[in-house]
Amino acid sequence: MEKTIGRMSLYRRLLLDIEKRGASHVYSHELARVAGIGAAQVRRDLMTMGFSGSPSKGYHVADLIGHIGTAIDPPEQQRVALVGVGNLGRAILAYFHGRRPKLAIVAAFDDDSAKVDKVVHGCRCHPLRAMSEIVPALDITVGIITVPAESAQDIADRLVNLDIKGILNFAPAALRVPPGVFVDTMDITTALEKVAYFARKGR
Amino acid sequence: MEKTIGRMSLYRRLLLDIEKRGASHVYSHELARVAGIGAAQVRRDLMTMGFSGSPSKGYHVADLIGHIGTAIDPPEQQRVALVGVGNLGRAILAYFHGRRPKLAIVAAFDDDSAKVDKVVHGCRCHPLRAMSEIVPALDITVGIITVPAESAQDIADRLVNLDIKGILNFAPAALRVPPGVFVDTMDITTALEKVAYFARKGR
Repeated sequence: MEKTIGRMSLYRRLLLDIEKRGASHVYSHELARVAGIGAAQVRRDLMTMGFSGSPSKGYHVADLIGHIGTAIDPPEQQRVALVGVGNLGRAILAYFHGRRPKLAIVAAFDDDSAKVDKVVHGCRCHPLRAMSEIVPALDITVGIITVPAESAQDIADRLVNLDIKGILNFAPAALRVPPGVFVDTMDITTALEKVAYFARKGR
Repeated sequence: MEKTIGRMSLYRRLLLDIEKRGASHVYSHELARVAGIGAAQVRRDLMTMGFSGSPSKGYHVADLIGHIGTAIDPPEQQRVALVGVGNLGRAILAYFHGRRPKLAIVAAFDDDSAKVDKVVHGCRCHPLRAMSEIVPALDITVGIITVPAESAQDIADRLVNLDIKGILNFAPAALRVPPGVFVDTMDITTALEKVAYFARKGR
């Protein structure tokens, strides 16, 4: 299930690119090629969603984009808080600013007085102590953690206590959360060190 | 092998935190807990590297950090190029600036004239056409791709032609590379959409 949702999100982004280039239809094997996924898997995923293409023209791009949105997007805006407005936090605010109207980062938290009460890429930065008030007030259900590793578990605990149900964690720390809370960790340093290691050995 | 290198990189970062807090020794079960990995796996990994701890005091932290460095770090500085100096590219430059002396981003590339010849977080930005000269001149072996999805394959092809052997790709695109080139893709948008989906369903 987790992987299916990931693929749907990927298909949609690729379909938006295809649409931007002016194509109205796409064959499953074309979508499969840009996605780096087998064509049979793509067809199975789309069929599971109840979507079918025409054998002669392929899938209708705009319809398919809409269909995926219905399947994976929230019916109403879903709100996200970001904790830790360092370089990475700021980049993520900039990256998502205005990109997904239904999935919006509506509050940032950091205790650095130079950041508190500033608006960073469209998002206001509050002190950490304001989390307990703002997270429920804005009906925030998702947290992004971009603090250093040593603070990550503490922040995760606070988010979970505020009824956050999903966390995207960029700190190199394995977060412990109760059942019912979904965590995904993206560790950029480890990824770069790994790529560098294999680049060296491959030479 | 790929996973072992990833774990070594993670252990080191956690050990650097532990060292910063003033501890000289650590037990495998403590390291395992913060890493979110089984203690038996941690002991196996360290044993594979020929490193052993004392049953009464655990592992010597500073020695273990050195040992991991010898195993996974390049003997000399390994150089990285970043292509695409947008929000995410800038954040990655800021994040790695001065962080790993042996793994340095030494050149950035972007065709935006507002960025060319500027120094961004300690790294000079060059036009894309300069890649073919600068990548070999600086002996760059690793590339980071932070361009939009539709340009990612073209950039990957150019990097591979310049003898780059490892690519960390942030574009939501499945890159096709020849054997001997290692690619890792980190797709932040898909990760956030997935987390948001499960946060919604978990409620």
